[in-house]
Amino acid sequence: MQIVQGGVTVPLGFQAIGDHIGIKKKRKDLSLLYSKTPAQVAGVFTTNVVKAAPVIWNQQIVKKYEKAQAVVINSGNANACTGKQGVVDTEKMAETTAYSLGLQPKDVLVASTGVIGTFLPIEKICTGIKNIVPMLSDSLDGGSKAAEGIMTTDTFIKEIAVEFSIDNQIVHIGGMAKGSGMIHPNMATMLSFITTDISISQTLLQKALKETVEDSYHMISVDGDTSTNDMVLVLANGLANNIGIQEENEAYFKFKQALQYVNIYLAKQIVKDGEGATKLLEVQIQQAKTKQQAKQLAMSILTSNLVKTAFFGEDANWGRILAAMGYSGVPFNPSKISINFTSKEGSIWLMKQGKVLNFNEQKAKEILKEEEIQIHIFLYEGKEKATAWGCDLSYDYVKINGSYRT
Amino acid sequence: MQIVQGGVTVPLGFQAIGDHIGIKKKRKDLSLLYSKTPAQVAGVFTTNVVKAAPVIWNQQIVKKYEKAQAVVINSGNANACTGKQGVVDTEKMAETTAYSLGLQPKDVLVASTGVIGTFLPIEKICTGIKNIVPMLSDSLDGGSKAAEGIMTTDTFIKEIAVEFSIDNQIVHIGGMAKGSGMIHPNMATMLSFITTDISISQTLLQKALKETVEDSYHMISVDGDTSTNDMVLVLANGLANNIGIQEENEAYFKFKQALQYVNIYLAKQIVKDGEGATKLLEVQIQQAKTKQQAKQLAMSILTSNLVKTAFFGEDANWGRILAAMGYSGVPFNPSKISINFTSKEGSIWLMKQGKVLNFNEQKAKEILKEEEIQIHIFLYEGKEKATAWGCDLSYDYVKINGSYRT
Repeated sequence: MQIVQGGVTVPLGFQAIGDHIGIKKKRKDLSLLYSKTPAQVAGVFTTNVVKAAPVIWNQQIVKKYEKAQAVVINSGNANACTGKQGVVDTEKMAETTAYSLGLQPKDVLVASTGVIGTFLPIEKICTGIKNIVPMLSDSLDGGSKAAEGIMTTDTFIKEIAVEFSIDNQIVHIGGMAKGSGMIHPNMATMLSFITTDISISQTLLQKALKETVEDSYHMISVDGDTSTNDMVLVLANGLANNIGIQEENEAYFKFKQALQYVNIYLAKQIVKDGEGATKLLEVQIQQAKTKQQAKQLAMSILTSNLVKTAFFGEDANWGRILAAMGYSGVPFNPSKISINFTSKEGSIWLMKQGKVLNFNEQKAKEILKEEEIQIHIFLYEGKEKATAWGCDLSYDYVKINGSYRT
Repeated sequence: MQIVQGGVTVPLGFQAIGDHIGIKKKRKDLSLLYSKTPAQVAGVFTTNVVKAAPVIWNQQIVKKYEKAQAVVINSGNANACTGKQGVVDTEKMAETTAYSLGLQPKDVLVASTGVIGTFLPIEKICTGIKNIVPMLSDSLDGGSKAAEGIMTTDTFIKEIAVEFSIDNQIVHIGGMAKGSGMIHPNMATMLSFITTDISISQTLLQKALKETVEDSYHMISVDGDTSTNDMVLVLANGLANNIGIQEENEAYFKFKQALQYVNIYLAKQIVKDGEGATKLLEVQIQQAKTKQQAKQLAMSILTSNLVKTAFFGEDANWGRILAAMGYSGVPFNPSKISINFTSKEGSIWLMKQGKVLNFNEQKAKEILKEEEIQIHIFLYEGKEKATAWGCDLSYDYVKINGSYRT
């Protein structure tokens, strides 16, 4: 597998575009993704009880039809908590897109991100859709513009593409994502859209997505809030011409591995661009008894405000890490564990098998000055491990999220 | 029941003192609480897997002996993650206090709060204990000094006393607490010590404490982190001379109600003094199906960083409240609920039975400018309710917790 330039338009038969249509003041706010042929579709959606209208629309399509050919996404307005009007508006977005592309509404997936509780400027959006359909492009630029159109307060676009071979055919996966951002701060939303030209059954596509989401998007935390709009969608149109994957064979695992790479890459980009983040934190829990134990400990550390502020302050405050592990809800033996911090500047042990070390504070500070820091924790209880990513909590997080909507 | 001046020394037979002995630079750092006669003791302790040495010591005493006569508390060092040395040091604190007071070590409860992972300056503490025993006083001033000695970065002392009558005897309850504070920021610790002269069985004392803790300390959140040292202790010495409470009779419920009042008062004081807090937030979930549902929804709202920063920014961001309810893990119907904000400045509805209201932003801002804000949420599903307290998330929270320990 190798990384190639570009994003969602790298796989064969996919076109994309993003443009400014006036939902936001200046930045791009409408994106379109299109597959020349019907694609198998799989999705993972927010577990929030409060679900935005487009989430419900997509869930039905994935479940009922298992196929789709286009995705229309607006930023600037999440169409969440908008009741019946929200449902009607989502349908209108799908209908307008379908009409402009010569498809059925059931072929179109919809996503929205931005302010919640405000109705979509639906006329503006429908006009926008009609205007951008002719601009769809299979160029790398088309993909980048689409990645730009889904951004809210993201500070950079997030896209990736990889290729690998199955049955001597080159297969591609492309992806774009947006992180936790706010428009007139209201809601953190994570959206990720993956395209691939692989030929695979919908059941296995859904399985591969679900399993790789567990180790990527589900292992990141910016602020512990789960949005009403979060979703990851993957469209597979089969144009790579490999022998269609119908069982969990070698080709399936090759695909799953590449999909995992793409998902982890995008997940890390989201965290790196977390609101106000100055550091990317990677927690590795090693030698755990179970995978679930390792995951829960890692996420508990990364969602602790005390841990996050300590890293912002570049303070080797291992005590907060231990405390966050302690209230994670899973058992472990604190008198046995080891804790190590590593960055480009070097590596330092703070605790070894339960013993607090008299570590060099100066060296610790130098390690923590870096932008990417790994926190290694050894439990010595078994063979399982988990990795999770998060960011620090800075003044800017408070500033971005504390400012008035108006 | 009425509130009276003072704190832990108000109940008959209790003495207290607090002084500076040199663990911290200037502020008081050692407190002592003493009952002239053996007292029934009940306790509720941190659920953190990582427990500081004094927590384990006290748990054993409460379970095994059910009685105690003194509590010694140091601030400035939490004696947590200190291994065997920590256990030895806790025992030394109990032994020295016992020796100075003519008691057995098993009669002495111990608490520590402050930096973790650093050994106690045990010689200094033992000398300090010997020096302050003769200063023990049953005056209100003695109680206040004790309340001061347990503070870390708390900005004010937290104490209260109430009295009520049972069997024509006046019964008193006094209490002192400290909130989430840091010494060379390491750990948030909540400590609360209650004294009472009521005569009651240990079983019922423990029951009343456990149940009132559920509705007080367990319903507050400063930053969602649970410390290794959290504890609430209550000592009942029986000197009020009421007929000893041996069953859940009227006297028991009268006592429990007063104890609940004391615990809620102290819990709210802790939140009000939360690190960097500028506002006290009270969430009331009304007409819920179950109490557990109501509690979980309330706590989910108050632990959301997005909700907390919005209140810091005085932004009527009801969408974040709805989203936090959505990922709380308990079901509710978002299309049915009502949301109201109330403060001294007035009251405003933001959502009524699922319908987003076009509320007056100016009025909302005026209401949110106040220091104490109530958030009322109606579920229309049943008759249960719950109240929880929290605070906003400010720049100062990040500042206090991000600064170097050194």
